[in-house]
Parts: sequence; structure tokens; C-alpha cells
Amino acid sequence: MRTIRFRDPAAETRTGELDGEDIRSDGETFSLSDVEVLPPTVPSKIIGTGPNYYSNIEHYGREEPESPSDLLLFVKTPPHVLVGHEGVATLRPHGEFHYEAELGVVIGEHCREVSSDEAMEYVEGYTCVNEITNKGVQESQYDPGNLVRSKSFDNSAPIGPVVASPDEVPEGATLELQLNGEVRQRDRISQLIHPVPSLIEEFSRYLTLEPGDVIATGSPEGVDKLSDGDQVEVSIEGIGTLKHSVVIPSP
Amino acid sequence: MRTIRFRDPAAETRTGELDGEDIRSDGETFSLSDVEVLPPTVPSKIIGTGPNYYSNIEHYGREEPESPSDLLLFVKTPPHVLVGHEGVATLRPHGEFHYEAELGVVIGEHCREVSSDEAMEYVEGYTCVNEITNKGVQESQYDPGNLVRSKSFDNSAPIGPVVASPDEVPEGATLELQLNGEVRQRDRISQLIHPVPSLIEEFSRYLTLEPGDVIATGSPEGVDKLSDGDQVEVSIEGIGTLKHSVVIPSP
Repeated sequence: MRTIRFRDPAAETRTGELDGEDIRSDGETFSLSDVEVLPPTVPSKIIGTGPNYYSNIEHYGREEPESPSDLLLFVKTPPHVLVGHEGVATLRPHGEFHYEAELGVVIGEHCREVSSDEAMEYVEGYTCVNEITNKGVQESQYDPGNLVRSKSFDNSAPIGPVVASPDEVPEGATLELQLNGEVRQRDRISQLIHPVPSLIEEFSRYLTLEPGDVIATGSPEGVDKLSDGDQVEVSIEGIGTLKHSVVIPSP
Repeated sequence: MRTIRFRDPAAETRTGELDGEDIRSDGETFSLSDVEVLPPTVPSKIIGTGPNYYSNIEHYGREEPESPSDLLLFVKTPPHVLVGHEGVATLRPHGEFHYEAELGVVIGEHCREVSSDEAMEYVEGYTCVNEITNKGVQESQYDPGNLVRSKSFDNSAPIGPVVASPDEVPEGATLELQLNGEVRQRDRISQLIHPVPSLIEEFSRYLTLEPGDVIATGSPEGVDKLSDGDQVEVSIEGIGTLKHSVVIPSP
């Protein structure tokens, strides 16, 4: 099942099931082309991590994070970070912004100190995320990581188009990012160093995960710079394609 | 004016004006002792920073952060971090938790790229925060700062009891923390290295501040360890006293 949030032609916010180009919602059927697609979830937080793809650590010559406790952990804070499918990510003039295609895990139930064995019981499904990062943040004396300034800025989390239930997404599903029609990132989600259940175990030791929260699971190699006017497509087999454009005003 | 959020005897959530021991809300008057005080704001995020008191950098021999862009920036993500006045901060068994008494700034209006000159127009008022930090987080290879694991855990942000409008809080107001009745931190908010308007200018360059959001402005010297059963009081002249207890279960 693919769940979509949208604004119908009467401007009402609704949730429905996407089937091809049709959306079924409370006994009504809408055409996908007649609605505005919204971010598929209303998270209290988006948790990000990395480096978590073998291709990424090989490409950059990084050391493998042996345990999930070695992974980076940052948050992007809604609502100002969210951009929906077919939306515009307007970034600020000062920065050097990079795309990062990622599998997003949408939490279905309150989740605290769960083991990896039971973690999947708390997952509603999967979505596509472009975890946009600002590499142009000035070094900060007390905050060299700068993980708020570089990660939690406005429109840094295009997400969607749907939440696909776990049965829709094959274990070796392809994750791909196209920039202006050209493939820039391509890997399989089976190449995650620490898979989804291990991430949930690690993060729920510290933060209570709320229904709707998203874990962005890390990006494979191929990350690169965004420019004004770029068209981005993030596709994951079984979920679909998140499309958005980029606006970077002149300074 | 001191604004309080509370659950009335009929379990309804309300906002009112606190006057001594009386709360006036929509033409009704309640006694403070008859209600449950709630966190005085419903933030989308709490932004934290430091080191931002002269007493702190002198005590630890730290270098002065010359510009607000040198300051640490982290977020605590609601709702799971919030504890209200007279509440219990239940922490996890594994950790070494420290209190940090701080002036909290409550944002009143959407705020993005504002200059320090106009910043105060976006402030609703001030509150007291205990910005609890976990110093016992295992070093992480890719995340040495560990500012999510050490800052954004459950019940890490006791806050309240009220939001006092800026005119209620003198420029040189005393900030004090008592642990089990003993003064442990005491300084004046005029001793902030980078004052509130400069923090708003710096942070709103990166994040859009939403109504209800809180900036925890940093803690003076005297920060130390919390133990199971501790009683904490954070007082700021013109705001009042935030009281809460601490529970740390045995591992």
C-alpha cells in the first residue's frame, strides 16, 4: 500500500491510498494530476545519520563505522525543513548545497529502547528523502561539526511522494538520484552498512521516536553540488519518484 | 504579564494569566494549587547554544566565542524532551546527567534572517529552562560532538513555569539554580557574552524560528551532576521558579 497526503481541489488536506494515478480517500477518488501532493508524513523530527553505505566509505576512503553507535546522528526540525513532491526547495543565497538521496523510514508507533529484533513492528513504511546538506557553513570554534547549521536549514528535506508499506519495497531495491535527467547516485538499499532495525535500536536508546517521525538512513556515493534551477528526482523501487526543483537566489 | 499553560480541574488544557496565586483564563479564575502546570509553550524545536556566560569560559579556561557564529548550536526536539513545572524528569539508567540553568527565550512570530536591531519584535517573552545534558555518551567515531545523543534525549528540557513578557524581566536579572535547596549556579543574565538579539540574528540565518520555539541561551558556571531523587529549582527574577524532580532508574 502507498499512502499519500494531499490537498484536494477544494483545498482540504486529506490522506488516501495511491493506486497508479488514482487516489482513494474516504470513498472518493481523485486523480493524482488534480491534487497538490504534500509531504507524506507530519514528523516531529527527522533523524539523519551516516556514513552508512559501503559505496560511500569506499569512495571517500572512510573507516567503516563498526557499530551503529559510531554513526553520526543529527536532526532536521519540521516544519520549516519540509518540501513535498513537485515542490520547490528554495535555499538561502549563502551556502554550498549538496543533494543526498536517502531511504526514509517512517515510524508508525511510539518507540523507545526497542531491540533490532522488534524494531520493524514500529515501522509504518518507507519514503524517499533528499537530505540536502550545506557544505558552505563557516567553521565554528565550539561547533566544528556544525550539524544544525549544515543540516537543519529551511527546505533541507524534500520528502515523498508516498509512504510505501514495507512489503512493497524489495530488500535489494534500487535507490537512484537523477540531477537534470542524469543519473548521479545509484545503489541498492541492501548496501546499507547498518540496516533499518539496527538504526532504530540505536536511535531509540536516546530519543523517543514518535508516529510520523522519519529516519533518513544515509546516502551512497555520488553526492554533489546543487545549483539554481536544478531538477532533482529521487527514486526507490516500490516507493516511486520524488521530484523537486531547486531555487538559490543570488546573494 | 506572566502567561501560564495548565490543565484545569476538568482536565481541559488552557492558557491564562498568572497573578500571584491566581490564574485568569477566559473570564474564569483558578487557583494555582488546583491545576497542573504544563510547559508554557508548545515549541517545534528548542535551540541550544554555548558557551555564552563569561563565568563559564573563565571557570573552564575556554576561549571567548568572538562572534555568535563561533557558538555551539544544537536542537532538542519536542515533545519527548519537555517536562513542565512540578514535573518529574525521568532519565535513562545509563548516562551521567548534568543540570544547566538557562534563560529561555520564547519566540512569538515567524522569524527568518532578522537583524539584531529588530530581533526583539519577534520575542514573546522569557522562561526558565534546565538544559539537562548527558556527559556519559560513548565517543562516536563520526560524531565526536554527539550533540543529539547528549542533548536531545527524553525529558532533557524541564521548562517553565510561565512565559514572562520582556518588560517583567530586568536587564540584570539574577539566574539561579538550587539543587536540593543549595545554591549551585548564580549569575546575571546581563553576563551573557552574546545577548538575546544577537542569538536571534545568528540562528535565524539558518533556521526559521516558529511561534512557541525556545532558545536556551547558555548556562553560567556551576554545572554539575544530577542524581536520582534530586530536587531542582531554576529561578529568574521576573519570571519565577521552575521546580522539578529527577528520577534515574537503576541499570
